[in-house]
Amino acid sequence: MTHVLTLNAGSSSLKSGLFLTGDEPNLVAEGHVDRIGSGARLRLSGPDGETLVERVLGAGDHESALKAALAGFDAHFPDSEITAVGHRVVHGGMDFAEPVELSDAILARLEAFVPFAPLHQPHNLAGIAAARNAFPDARQIACFDTAFHRNHPFVNDVFALPRAYYDKGIRRYGFHGLSYDYISSALARTNPALHAGRVIVAHLGNGASMCAMRAGKSVASSMGFSALDGLPMGTRSGQLDPGVLLYLLESEGLSAQEISDLLYRKSGLLGLSGLSSDMRTLLASDSERAREAIDYFCFRIRRELGGLAAALEGLDALVFTGGIGENAAPIRAQVCRGLGWLGIELDEDRNDSGETVISANRSSTRVLVIPTDEERVIARATAALVA
Amino acid sequence: MTHVLTLNAGSSSLKSGLFLTGDEPNLVAEGHVDRIGSGARLRLSGPDGETLVERVLGAGDHESALKAALAGFDAHFPDSEITAVGHRVVHGGMDFAEPVELSDAILARLEAFVPFAPLHQPHNLAGIAAARNAFPDARQIACFDTAFHRNHPFVNDVFALPRAYYDKGIRRYGFHGLSYDYISSALARTNPALHAGRVIVAHLGNGASMCAMRAGKSVASSMGFSALDGLPMGTRSGQLDPGVLLYLLESEGLSAQEISDLLYRKSGLLGLSGLSSDMRTLLASDSERAREAIDYFCFRIRRELGGLAAALEGLDALVFTGGIGENAAPIRAQVCRGLGWLGIELDEDRNDSGETVISANRSSTRVLVIPTDEERVIARATAALVA
Repeated sequence: MTHVLTLNAGSSSLKSGLFLTGDEPNLVAEGHVDRIGSGARLRLSGPDGETLVERVLGAGDHESALKAALAGFDAHFPDSEITAVGHRVVHGGMDFAEPVELSDAILARLEAFVPFAPLHQPHNLAGIAAARNAFPDARQIACFDTAFHRNHPFVNDVFALPRAYYDKGIRRYGFHGLSYDYISSALARTNPALHAGRVIVAHLGNGASMCAMRAGKSVASSMGFSALDGLPMGTRSGQLDPGVLLYLLESEGLSAQEISDLLYRKSGLLGLSGLSSDMRTLLASDSERAREAIDYFCFRIRRELGGLAAALEGLDALVFTGGIGENAAPIRAQVCRGLGWLGIELDEDRNDSGETVISANRSSTRVLVIPTDEERVIARATAALVA
Repeated sequence: MTHVLTLNAGSSSLKSGLFLTGDEPNLVAEGHVDRIGSGARLRLSGPDGETLVERVLGAGDHESALKAALAGFDAHFPDSEITAVGHRVVHGGMDFAEPVELSDAILARLEAFVPFAPLHQPHNLAGIAAARNAFPDARQIACFDTAFHRNHPFVNDVFALPRAYYDKGIRRYGFHGLSYDYISSALARTNPALHAGRVIVAHLGNGASMCAMRAGKSVASSMGFSALDGLPMGTRSGQLDPGVLLYLLESEGLSAQEISDLLYRKSGLLGLSGLSSDMRTLLASDSERAREAIDYFCFRIRRELGGLAAALEGLDALVFTGGIGENAAPIRAQVCRGLGWLGIELDEDRNDSGETVISANRSSTRVLVIPTDEERVIARATAALVA
């Protein structure tokens, strides 16, 4: 039986999915290695989330993490024949609006985007290198987080800098495109009328962004050039006045590296709360700073929602997804309070009980919760490209 | 007769107003010196804009510019007795939510805000020094561009950085407060019902920002910590992904000074159009890049409008002011196209003929044009404080 393997390599994690190919890829098992570099752990689970393997891997890099996950797949599914590997790649630059089969020439172009995403792209490339070693005969496909956003109107793509910067790629790319692609496909299947309309998707996880879609296509996003802009995140600042960076450089004497570390790793919910980057911890806390961090998070979502509604000239539906968006009913409730002006009225019972549609019947703008599935988008694209 | 002098000192300009004190200050004459440092020119005009004096001053600094303006006032209004001088000061930090009488101690505190507004605050302080020399017996009052915004809710005030930065003043201050204060007072006088509601003011000039007001008080602004954030301006970038600055530092090797110069002086309408920072020039041009710069300017206004409407939970009125807002009917028309979702419908004839209310009768959200008068706000505050 031919299978597709999906790989999603982060800085210290490696998610993998084993899919049986067919009209629609069929998930066989998932592997999740985290804490790579500082005592890695592997968890293998079946399609319904049941644990198949759980063990400590200890030291090692992305390549040994991949080997451990593959050994687990092999032990449980010895008949699987992996003919293609689909990779999540955060940055496809100006060039890639679609998945692409990897070659040495393409890989060299992806290397060139490292300065655009210095904290993410190298790990994606490390995952590709590991998979090429493990499966020298399989076809390797790259699926880009930026690709879904590559047809933004010019005004949503450009910064007000001298044109030379736009020409060399300093643009509002937008990220989490695989997630938005999945939500768009899910809406098309379950609610074609909404899919055809004006939809804003809030992908709220440890990373967080929002996407404005018209007829299922991305028109604008809260994230711009890097994975820093827009919403506050677990440890990332989100929107920041460029004057703050100039102040940190000129008056506080911070180096670029120190500012990068501050904005990527010490800011966001962690920085504001002084407590944790994890929304579950903040929601369970009775500290005032935890509450203020949550208030800021929810407020910025509402503010981006207004800005993105302007890009869509109105709003038909708001979709929550991602770890926080799918699981944190109190966050969804708080975001939606004060959105009556956009025709949004939540049904608190539906929200609490985890239904798909959580708006009240009289809400003119629908509010939905749709679990995302980036791995499925990668598997689909990979299977389609090698078919 | 006792008079109040107002001073508004920019990097290469000095605006001054001579007001007769009374229940409401009465403008006697205005002085405008520009090109200070590179061949200064003085224009003195009466209350209806008629030219009283126009001459080249040549070399000189803010102090000699002030002397020239005062000599002009003296020659035309020999009976004027200046008992107080009101100064526009861009930054009042966390401390000043109201105008304040200047003392050596207060001046030292204003000096400390120079790192918050390095391109503006030093010129304001130079103007104060010049006025103290010229009028050693007059009372000197500082009126802050930040003061009108000092009671923003926490979520509109904070960035998602570690709390220590908030505590030391890295906040969303907001600027153009004297202009917004004037618009608020004008609305209170002419349209108390709107004044009591949710109003967004777009101050569009060479500098540009927007302010969300509820019951005449600022709730949020598009400008944050510095005069860079929010809308694109004549030569300033407006909103920018912090990742772009990190890229410019790390990959392009620009220094902080070079980035500051890029973002304050070479970006915005000038950078995008490659042609001019002046909206009149862009509107008269048939170049595609000029049109794109205008498109971006108008789009970002709409996007900020959506975000600020979220802060107000809806919108009752949009007010245009500032050089572009008051005079560029095509810009107002383009901004309002695509705002039907906010209940905005422009009356093109009213807009073209320069009426105060330019929305159609059936527009549920009113659109107004109100000329701003920052000098009057300074004169009022100064007269009130010394009374």
